[in-house]
Amino acid sequence: MKTAVYPGSFDPVTYGHIDIIERAAETFDKVVVLVSINSAKSALFSLDERVTMLQQAVREFGNVEIASFDGLVIEYCRQHGIHTIVRGLRAVTDFEYELQIAQTNRELSQDHVDTVFLTTDLRYSYLSSSIVKEIASYNGNIQPCVPEFVARAVYAKFGFAEVEAK
Amino acid sequence: MKTAVYPGSFDPVTYGHIDIIERAAETFDKVVVLVSINSAKSALFSLDERVTMLQQAVREFGNVEIASFDGLVIEYCRQHGIHTIVRGLRAVTDFEYELQIAQTNRELSQDHVDTVFLTTDLRYSYLSSSIVKEIASYNGNIQPCVPEFVARAVYAKFGFAEVEAK
Amino acid sequence: MKTAVYPGSFDPVTYGHIDIIERAAETFDKVVVLVSINSAKSALFSLDERVTMLQQAVREFGNVEIASFDGLVIEYCRQHGIHTIVRGLRAVTDFEYELQIAQTNRELSQDHVDTVFLTTDLRYSYLSSSIVKEIASYNGNIQPCVPEFVARAVYAKFGFAEVEAK
Amino acid sequence: MKTAVYPGSFDPVTYGHIDIIERAAETFDKVVVLVSINSAKSALFSLDERVTMLQQAVREFGNVEIASFDGLVIEYCRQHGIHTIVRGLRAVTDFEYELQIAQTNRELSQDHVDTVFLTTDLRYSYLSSSIVKEIASYNGNIQPCVPEFVARAVYAKFGFAEVEAK
Amino acid sequence: MKTAVYPGSFDPVTYGHIDIIERAAETFDKVVVLVSINSAKSALFSLDERVTMLQQAVREFGNVEIASFDGLVIEYCRQHGIHTIVRGLRAVTDFEYELQIAQTNRELSQDHVDTVFLTTDLRYSYLSSSIVKEIASYNGNIQPCVPEFVARAVYAKFGFAEVEAK
Amino acid sequence: MKTAVYPGSFDPVTYGHIDIIERAAETFDKVVVLVSINSAKSALFSLDERVTMLQQAVREFGNVEIASFDGLVIEYCRQHGIHTIVRGLRAVTDFEYELQIAQTNRELSQDHVDTVFLTTDLRYSYLSSSIVKEIASYNGNIQPCVPEFVARAVYAKFGFAEVEAK
Repeated sequence: MKTAVYPGSFDPVTYGHIDIIERAAETFDKVVVLVSINSAKSALFSLDERVTMLQQAVREFGNVEIASFDGLVIEYCRQHGIHTIVRGLRAVTDFEYELQIAQTNRELSQDHVDTVFLTTDLRYSYLSSSIVKEIASYNGNIQPCVPEFVARAVYAKFGFAEVEAK
Repeated sequence: MKTAVYPGSFDPVTYGHIDIIERAAETFDKVVVLVSINSAKSALFSLDERVTMLQQAVREFGNVEIASFDGLVIEYCRQHGIHTIVRGLRAVTDFEYELQIAQTNRELSQDHVDTVFLTTDLRYSYLSSSIVKEIASYNGNIQPCVPEFVARAVYAKFGFAEVEAK
Repeated sequence: MKTAVYPGSFDPVTYGHIDIIERAAETFDKVVVLVSINSAKSALFSLDERVTMLQQAVREFGNVEIASFDGLVIEYCRQHGIHTIVRGLRAVTDFEYELQIAQTNRELSQDHVDTVFLTTDLRYSYLSSSIVKEIASYNGNIQPCVPEFVARAVYAKFGFAEVEAK
Repeated sequence: MKTAVYPGSFDPVTYGHIDIIERAAETFDKVVVLVSINSAKSALFSLDERVTMLQQAVREFGNVEIASFDGLVIEYCRQHGIHTIVRGLRAVTDFEYELQIAQTNRELSQDHVDTVFLTTDLRYSYLSSSIVKEIASYNGNIQPCVPEFVARAVYAKFGFAEVEAK
Repeated sequence: MKTAVYPGSFDPVTYGHIDIIERAAETFDKVVVLVSINSAKSALFSLDERVTMLQQAVREFGNVEIASFDGLVIEYCRQHGIHTIVRGLRAVTDFEYELQIAQTNRELSQDHVDTVFLTTDLRYSYLSSSIVKEIASYNGNIQPCVPEFVARAVYAKFGFAEVEAK
Repeated sequence: MKTAVYPGSFDPVTYGHIDIIERAAETFDKVVVLVSINSAKSALFSLDERVTMLQQAVREFGNVEIASFDGLVIEYCRQHGIHTIVRGLRAVTDFEYELQIAQTNRELSQDHVDTVFLTTDLRYSYLSSSIVKEIASYNGNIQPCVPEFVARAVYAKFGFAEVEAK
């Protein structure tokens, strides 16, 4: 059985992430969405909130589970006997950085962990968690970017009572 | 009448910005230079200082005005019935980021606001406000980068009495 | 009145081109779509066929006209008093090449002709005339890429009786 | 069972291709290496020669087979019920082109065929069939680039009696 | 005699840096590795620690010396009559930024200081000081990335008693 | 004494090439401009014409000589005991291709030949021999791109009696 790990911050999960999760779920037998506990970057949502939103977002996919880990992704892979990391690609700047991380992981795992890249649907190619948060901070419309239950949670963090209706 | 908005931080305005403003002023009937009030990034100059320097820098262009706005650029466009955003392009890294922002703005405005990209003169293709500030912080020569009245203001912020004469 | 030239081979016109023409028609008072007579590249369609297909494709836009020219685009601009070239951008490789052409045109016209870049709708960001022709050569489905009357003409060139219906 | 297609010209197969085939064979249950019959590009080796060299090169991998097809890759996928295309990535220029092809294939297959990207080992990131042929045409040393039986075949095509021994 | 300056933060020195230093030492008569005193970025190692580690790392190269400077690199060049800056290149994102800095330095030095770019060995093309620090912060294995005496120093900073032995 | 080889087609030499030659001549003790005899690409000028134009173009530089070679650049380096290749960089697309060639040369020479990259003056960053030829084929103005004696030779090849005077 081929299992793949899809690591990220998911702060919060967007339609772009969900698109990659769906594609990975079709390509591999099982997909573990791994929420990184990154103390360096200050997150808008707590680890628990991010995991809970992801669980709701992937409910419909039978072969996807959510996990979190405080350490290097390749260490998680080693502990769980997983050999494949999945990453989404949107643009050239992404690609360079992702390629660097992929090569580092391959070196550090002594060639036992490989990274496969999937590309998002064109509709979501502009999306990122950062842009969602920036738009929401001005009470802009984030409904094309995230599921409604995520939108409500994001607006609440910025003190807006409900989803705007412009 | 075709009006375009040219948004940015302008902290401070450089010859690169002025070059784009001049090109935009020749391409469109009217250009609004929109200074963003970005509380996240700590600026060297106050909003008032940035607006005042811009006003002096564009004095010679008859169809350019300076404005500021605390919100999303597309919200400003919606309120003022403007359909075109102008952005300057220098390099690939710029391009990827700018393309992402342009697509986001188009999606969020439901296709009513489009972004047109202009390229700077080759002489200014290396310029950015950040580089100007870094050079000035070491009392380096920023006179090829900004008008003299801007240079004096930047040196003053870093505690240098006057424009260096190396 | 602001007029812009949109030059290209249009061999044949695709939905990506039509998207840029529509955006240019909203941004400028008048748009001239200029079909280049490039003897170097062997075209699938004759100049007349390319012009005729473009005329049908832009019929609905009131401020767009089709022209052809055997020479440099900036020479056409000089002869017709036009100062703006429009180009569509899809990707980084595009961008580098387009930037090179834009700077060349600016230099050669002594700064009298500037290039503005528009970005295509995400749905068409993968499209090019070359890909359309390659797919059609295998009797693949090009209906998501070009108007139906163009599709029929392309299939005919490759000896396929009608639009495939897979 | 997850099957992936790895399409290409393989004119001739290089260590870079073999590296991707090995990674794909570890990631998927079965891998079909699909040699394209591209009449447009003039190949150094005949289709039969390319298939035979590939068969020898992948002999050690139990779940890899070689096939050829005269048509679009997605048509091959449709006929064989395959949903995954594998492609190797080396550089940014690659990436842009590959991304364009991947999006086209997804659109044309109505989202039934997805592309996953694998990255080559750093040692082979500079390699391509074209570079191998250019070096060999000057009787340069291609032994770091291709298996020895391939090197002999390439030198023979260029009229060199045997592998050079500089 | 041709002298070149190789500036950087070296926080800490990696095998990638050492590879560039070795190549520069073969290309130029003398190489000065210039450690920048950048108060803006918070460094893991003090200036003294960084200089000491570099001195140990370049011990074997006869024509390399270590220096530090609180100012612009071109000002150091001016004071010491040096006309060449060396920089290592790994990726496109690097390249754009480095090109911008190179052009700025050339402009500010009135064309008296030029930048030459060297590329790292493929084995080190994924390496950066930031990645080394991130891996080490999780007690990951950084031995493929830095000399052993550097690895020990990095682990000590993160409170790990010794080099891990996974 | 440090000698560097600057290889290329130089069909014809442009101000961009001359700029790189000048920078290389300042950086190294001696520079050999190596005109490649590439039978694959059809050149506008014969090898003799290209060498003669280069000789005239570099007359003022005391430490530059022109040579030609029918083989791989690294083979020329091996025969003449040279360890450095110089290449000019303009853009990202250039960079990727150049990096690939540089790594290939390093591998094939067993690490004895390294490539250093210089960047052209911003004024020439848009220039290439191909663009010069395309402009001249339409009797466009190439005087900002090449020395006058080169311009006359290019116009003559396209059957234009003299340098245009628009």
